[in-house]
Amino acid sequence: MSVDRSSLKTGALVRQACRNGEFTGQTSGLAPGFAQANLVILPQTEALQFQEFCEKNPKPCPLLEVTVPGDPCPQILAKSADLRTDLPRYRVWRRGELVDEPTDITSLWQNDFVAFLIGCSFTFEEALIAAGLSVRHIDQGVNVPMYRTTIPCESAGMFSGPLVVSMRPFKPADAIRAVQITSRFPAVHGAPVHLGFPEQLGITDLSTPDYGDAVSVKPDELPVFWACGVTPQAVLMQARPEFAITHSPGCMFVSDLKDEELAADTTDQPGRSF
Amino acid sequence: MSVDRSSLKTGALVRQACRNGEFTGQTSGLAPGFAQANLVILPQTEALQFQEFCEKNPKPCPLLEVTVPGDPCPQILAKSADLRTDLPRYRVWRRGELVDEPTDITSLWQNDFVAFLIGCSFTFEEALIAAGLSVRHIDQGVNVPMYRTTIPCESAGMFSGPLVVSMRPFKPADAIRAVQITSRFPAVHGAPVHLGFPEQLGITDLSTPDYGDAVSVKPDELPVFWACGVTPQAVLMQARPEFAITHSPGCMFVSDLKDEELAADTTDQPGRSF
Repeated sequence: MSVDRSSLKTGALVRQACRNGEFTGQTSGLAPGFAQANLVILPQTEALQFQEFCEKNPKPCPLLEVTVPGDPCPQILAKSADLRTDLPRYRVWRRGELVDEPTDITSLWQNDFVAFLIGCSFTFEEALIAAGLSVRHIDQGVNVPMYRTTIPCESAGMFSGPLVVSMRPFKPADAIRAVQITSRFPAVHGAPVHLGFPEQLGITDLSTPDYGDAVSVKPDELPVFWACGVTPQAVLMQARPEFAITHSPGCMFVSDLKDEELAADTTDQPGRSF
Repeated sequence: MSVDRSSLKTGALVRQACRNGEFTGQTSGLAPGFAQANLVILPQTEALQFQEFCEKNPKPCPLLEVTVPGDPCPQILAKSADLRTDLPRYRVWRRGELVDEPTDITSLWQNDFVAFLIGCSFTFEEALIAAGLSVRHIDQGVNVPMYRTTIPCESAGMFSGPLVVSMRPFKPADAIRAVQITSRFPAVHGAPVHLGFPEQLGITDLSTPDYGDAVSVKPDELPVFWACGVTPQAVLMQARPEFAITHSPGCMFVSDLKDEELAADTTDQPGRSF
């Protein structure tokens, strides 16, 4: 009932191991180069409002795919996938309360369910590292620090709430490179939303993130903030819909899409910065 | 002997007015949308070293064109142009000393002269303004503030010296946009080289620039620094070559190339930042 993580080299292998019950862990670092996605499942009525919310807030909620109502198979991210079985672990919510954390949701599936697959920052972090940048929370072996801001999202129907951001500290020259690199990935939060002045986002203390873990920020570094995929989850919990299913934290959907396929047709320009 | 500035709507019209002796002023704001360039003319021996210097330092010295020795006509930027007559005003240097400021250098031209046409920040400033950003020194009606840094350029032969940077202050969201926008223009200094910590560049006081004029930087703004076209001129003066000709400050070569033709094949990504 367990599998060697290093053998899970592709999205298809990860999904198969999940489906067979052989893998129920976190997906960070699995299937390098394959895009991972956040999952939100809602009945069709709430789904329409949630889709509008995502479309109004593309930086925190970049939609990679919205499934046909009742169909658990994505047509874009992985045609062979079944969203009822192919994630390591799910969370089941009733009126905003966590009621179960199963590894399979086949028995819960209904013919009006719509699944949202939302871009994940793992993709742009791989691109940052490939460009030679150090990502602090990865170096420190902890989760990225995330903060609720005082910036409201655009609301839609029952869905509203503040923007949640993730923070990665960089020296100025690397911050400039990070803007260039992540601008190429609009489908996974894209360019930073802010850098330099946490207080302008209503963040009073970087050492006490609202989610994830604190990381060190050195005196010669700028804190750089990206819109975060926790935003739609926080908004979902706050809206307390009758019923919802999400992925369990860190247990993402691993697609067949390569990270580089999510890059916009742009080149980031190298050059000496200081 | 004078001409209405507003009638000089294209590079060809500016150059014709210069050639006829009808225009001898600064070119900022003339021929909107047409790329302007810095000019450096050197005899072939020094030119080879200067070309190597520019190629080693592409951010401060982005070469748009280097002419064939002895030929005063550029083949890329404007085929109908004559660099001996088509700029409003020149500076003639002997061993680093300014000896004349003529409006025509036909009588000085030698058959081993090589002309360097170097990208100018006017191009990316037009792009910043087109994107809705405010450029402080333009709003304040002064010259951009420029600073000698403690960052050495890569030296080549007789040419060496510190990087000179220009500074434009922006709110963080606009600074992110400015990185995206100017990254599209590698031929005109490209992305910023730094933002946030002037002291990391050896700049102790933003209010006392080494060239140009001081501008206000508000508490909620980041100073953003670009490599500056004054760098090659400062390096040239310091090297004290036997003979050199440059454009007179602000009296640029106006080309047939449109600013947008200098854009790399990239898209800068819009999105809500804060």
